[in-house]
Amino acid sequence: MKPRPPLSPRPEIASLQPYRVAENAPVKLNQNESALDWPEAVKAEVLRRVAARAWNRYPEVDSVRLREALARFIGTGPEMIAVTNGSNEAILALVEAFAGGRGLVQPVPGYSMVQRLARVGGAAVRTIPLRPDFTLDVEAMVRAVQAPDAAMVFLASPNNPTGVAFDRPSIEAVLEASSGLVVIDEAYAGFGGDSYIPDLAAFPHLAVLRTLSKAFALAGVRVGWIVANEPVVAAVRKVLPPYNLSLFAQEAALVALDHADLLEERITLIVRERNRMSAAMAQIPGIAAYPSQTNFILFSTTITPAVLYDRLLDRGVLVRDFSSAPLLSRCLRVTVGLPEENDQFLQALRVSMAEDA
Amino acid sequence: MKPRPPLSPRPEIASLQPYRVAENAPVKLNQNESALDWPEAVKAEVLRRVAARAWNRYPEVDSVRLREALARFIGTGPEMIAVTNGSNEAILALVEAFAGGRGLVQPVPGYSMVQRLARVGGAAVRTIPLRPDFTLDVEAMVRAVQAPDAAMVFLASPNNPTGVAFDRPSIEAVLEASSGLVVIDEAYAGFGGDSYIPDLAAFPHLAVLRTLSKAFALAGVRVGWIVANEPVVAAVRKVLPPYNLSLFAQEAALVALDHADLLEERITLIVRERNRMSAAMAQIPGIAAYPSQTNFILFSTTITPAVLYDRLLDRGVLVRDFSSAPLLSRCLRVTVGLPEENDQFLQALRVSMAEDA
Repeated sequence: MKPRPPLSPRPEIASLQPYRVAENAPVKLNQNESALDWPEAVKAEVLRRVAARAWNRYPEVDSVRLREALARFIGTGPEMIAVTNGSNEAILALVEAFAGGRGLVQPVPGYSMVQRLARVGGAAVRTIPLRPDFTLDVEAMVRAVQAPDAAMVFLASPNNPTGVAFDRPSIEAVLEASSGLVVIDEAYAGFGGDSYIPDLAAFPHLAVLRTLSKAFALAGVRVGWIVANEPVVAAVRKVLPPYNLSLFAQEAALVALDHADLLEERITLIVRERNRMSAAMAQIPGIAAYPSQTNFILFSTTITPAVLYDRLLDRGVLVRDFSSAPLLSRCLRVTVGLPEENDQFLQALRVSMAEDA
Repeated sequence: MKPRPPLSPRPEIASLQPYRVAENAPVKLNQNESALDWPEAVKAEVLRRVAARAWNRYPEVDSVRLREALARFIGTGPEMIAVTNGSNEAILALVEAFAGGRGLVQPVPGYSMVQRLARVGGAAVRTIPLRPDFTLDVEAMVRAVQAPDAAMVFLASPNNPTGVAFDRPSIEAVLEASSGLVVIDEAYAGFGGDSYIPDLAAFPHLAVLRTLSKAFALAGVRVGWIVANEPVVAAVRKVLPPYNLSLFAQEAALVALDHADLLEERITLIVRERNRMSAAMAQIPGIAAYPSQTNFILFSTTITPAVLYDRLLDRGVLVRDFSSAPLLSRCLRVTVGLPEENDQFLQALRVSMAEDA
């Protein structure tokens, strides 16, 4: 056997850091999960349907029943919907279909997975900082999306981790300036902010992302979907592997949509808790909470964020440290949990901040 | 609003045809699914575990419990395993990590999704025809894998749709000649043929694919895995989206591995049926069945394959027409089903062939 040069991944991949998440904690408020699991009766309904299916058979290749149900839910046609194994698969597929070998523009701070998935799909990312008040820098965005290689723009509204929606005129300015695909991630749309799904009629190059992981409380099931005009969806569906949703994901999503009436009261509870947390945080010396239209709150601290993170974790509360993100050198993010979890967070925050007083 | 040029996907994607599968039929023998679903008690065990999980929480980010269980099952360490949403995601991730922007070599006929996934991941595919007896053309393979841009070789053993394993010296010749990644898909390994997992110790550039979709009878659950040396797995895990397996997929796979003792008798049944089908097909004028080490049989026919396909479908039996694949202009493929399904197929085949007599 002759010597063989060492095997190496593509250079863009070799330089990627592995994706890591923090360990668990008694009060887990780090991933913007829904505070509330589905009621047992609804889970039982899913499991009955799953039990009746043949597990040895491939699931529906393109989840047609689910696409039809989602289409009814949002008032469009199934040809305008592609379903994905979580939003991550949706973003990767959009990059692969439209942006590979070209460029992707993202305002930052934004969803951090996008830069990773863009690299995997072979797109070069150009980040555009938000203004200090977390609004879009429209002039810079317009210039960036007009660059010849700008094949895709990705923005989330409401934005994560900042917690607020961008204003409509700013988003429209981006839509009007861009000749590439404009992806608006509405992962947190259930909690606040305008939806741009009605704008699909005017903008053939718009794609809206939705997920069952947040307001719908199904992060463990892994279902996201893309709403876009038929040519965009057709391109994405060429790129998505067939059978990307298991029979469980299909049935769970169908049952969840049947019970969408439960959503409103759950969102009301989370929004009430969020407002209570914001008000309580405003009373804690050294803490400033930013406004939120989502199920999480970004806040800044006068002490070193990593120190505060550790103090909260020592008290059993896991949040997320964003101090290495652009503009957020003083910031952490907390998810809105159950009332008792939020109380534990607030108490831990008060005590942790008082340690320096 | 100024006029905008029409949005277009990347050219390699625009020219892809949508993936299609045939409709269903009473006797479905077209996708090499396991003939046998899991026993109800085992499914119930999965569902009990799923019911006890919090669906609102993200699943384990990298399926660590499942990777540990798979490692025990095949006798390796969890750092040598990456799990995927079916084998399709595994193949795409390997292309993205190693072959994007470079070339991939595949002997054909072979697994047809590979060329599609390579295109999505930006790799150029070079196909090398098998010899007429469906063995590897070792000289041509060695030349192809030594080309400067050949970053990856993909072969399945046993091969699909031909149904037989390549011989070990041929595969070793490819392994020794290649400086790129050599991927051996062992999707059908449960039914026959050598495994190359023991060869990982000698070949740092080898990756073996496995799946729960075939012998393990979990096509509906979507679980595949990659076994490779740690540097290869580390690169793949950078590319795979986090949370790529739902809590259901994780629990179902764990329970399936706990009941792996059921596999052997089920494989024995399928192999017995396969041999019975082959013997019966040998008696049908105008039909020649190729040898098989899998749960399917490739066969050639003296009548036009598309005509025979339609005649079988008219009689309620769905097979797959491979007449457009290289070397297979006279061929169809039938999956080994339950004994009564195989009887229906054999009877439909006899009658369909007799129509021309």
